[in-house]
Amino acid sequence: MFYLIGLGLGDATDITVKGLEIVKRAKRVYLEAYTSILTEEYYGRELILADRDMVETQADELLMDAENEDIVFLIVGDPFGATTHTDLVLRAVEKDIKYKVVHNASIMNAVGCCGLQTVSIVFWTEPWRPDSFYDKIKVNREKGMHTLCLLDIKVKEQTIENMMKGKKIFEPPRYMTFTEETVCVGLARIGADTQQIVAATLQEMTSVDLGGPLHSLVVPGHMHPLEMDMLRLFANSQHVKDLLKS
Amino acid sequence: MFYLIGLGLGDATDITVKGLEIVKRAKRVYLEAYTSILTEEYYGRELILADRDMVETQADELLMDAENEDIVFLIVGDPFGATTHTDLVLRAVEKDIKYKVVHNASIMNAVGCCGLQTVSIVFWTEPWRPDSFYDKIKVNREKGMHTLCLLDIKVKEQTIENMMKGKKIFEPPRYMTFTEETVCVGLARIGADTQQIVAATLQEMTSVDLGGPLHSLVVPGHMHPLEMDMLRLFANSQHVKDLLKS
Repeated sequence: MFYLIGLGLGDATDITVKGLEIVKRAKRVYLEAYTSILTEEYYGRELILADRDMVETQADELLMDAENEDIVFLIVGDPFGATTHTDLVLRAVEKDIKYKVVHNASIMNAVGCCGLQTVSIVFWTEPWRPDSFYDKIKVNREKGMHTLCLLDIKVKEQTIENMMKGKKIFEPPRYMTFTEETVCVGLARIGADTQQIVAATLQEMTSVDLGGPLHSLVVPGHMHPLEMDMLRLFANSQHVKDLLKS
Repeated sequence: MFYLIGLGLGDATDITVKGLEIVKRAKRVYLEAYTSILTEEYYGRELILADRDMVETQADELLMDAENEDIVFLIVGDPFGATTHTDLVLRAVEKDIKYKVVHNASIMNAVGCCGLQTVSIVFWTEPWRPDSFYDKIKVNREKGMHTLCLLDIKVKEQTIENMMKGKKIFEPPRYMTFTEETVCVGLARIGADTQQIVAATLQEMTSVDLGGPLHSLVVPGHMHPLEMDMLRLFANSQHVKDLLKS
């Protein structure tokens, strides 16, 4: 198994418990050299420094034996912060090597600490029927930008009526899933063993079973060839594969 | 100290080593109830379930003694995935309670596993001078959307000449910092103890010392009052505070 393990943003102790366990038992552990995080002593095992040059020119050596042994590649932040790592995954898949990702914090989400929020698609209620997300997705698509839509989730919500009566009666949980008519990427339970990623037209998506929540939906804009290569791995049909030709 | 600790996306072992250490020594540990992650046995200590209702109506009780004791609030994914948690931070700051965030993976960044990439502002080289980011920021601003700009970083890069000659001679590392003329949020070393967040006009930002890399820049669009409340915590000047009035 080829493991891409995120180290997070701070120091050596920002690795996840899951990641550390894998590091300790793996056959070889590579560390992306571009990092100020001093980890060797902390992890108590030898780390092979792999700078971008090595990752790009000696990927075969890096992936050697990964069919049968656990090989780890440690990356500052989250493994998918940089295209270089997407490329490594594609090479592994070419060689029929299975891969697993251990996610961690990266600037992409930690930026939330400055308090700015993101585009969400929320359930409509009477009289509250926000549709601001539509314009945003539309604009992004027109300008060739991707939109990550966090679909709404209702857990332990009160009805307006019960809220006004001060009754702590909560409605059954609801999770929004897909309904629209366009091409997208469905993601479910990312980070869990049961995670699912499906690239499909929304038409197709309506008949794709992503399993339980939480679901997210990406509406891709104009895609880089490497992005299409990656998305094809998750294509729901030959039709979608064709749509995702570089 | 009031700790907001992200649990990541998978199971109990997705907590960071740093997070787990804090959980084990804290006085009280609250767990955001909306989670399928069974953690109690794993962490080996009592967890107080805190659903959204409790967080919103009993925040004072939740923050009690946090001036002198370590109180932990565990959140699935990253602590700043939901506004409820921003609100908790604002209440803590009101009470002069110090807070720390232990970041973790959330759908906001783990979505990268589907291979889609983000807007980056890259160094210009001759003849490669990409400026696609400009339109994207412009469009986002026009439509009131935020833009997270990942500033470019050049580590162990070869000159085109050396690359063609096959010479493995690498240029000294370069990190892009700020130059533009507009309002923004500067973030540096997010997740590290030395992290810095500064809301400033870019004019001001040019004289703000964010310290060493990595730097990121957020160009906010139209802001929710709660977003402004949060950003004011990081305002570089009274002028910026005034600009961030709800």
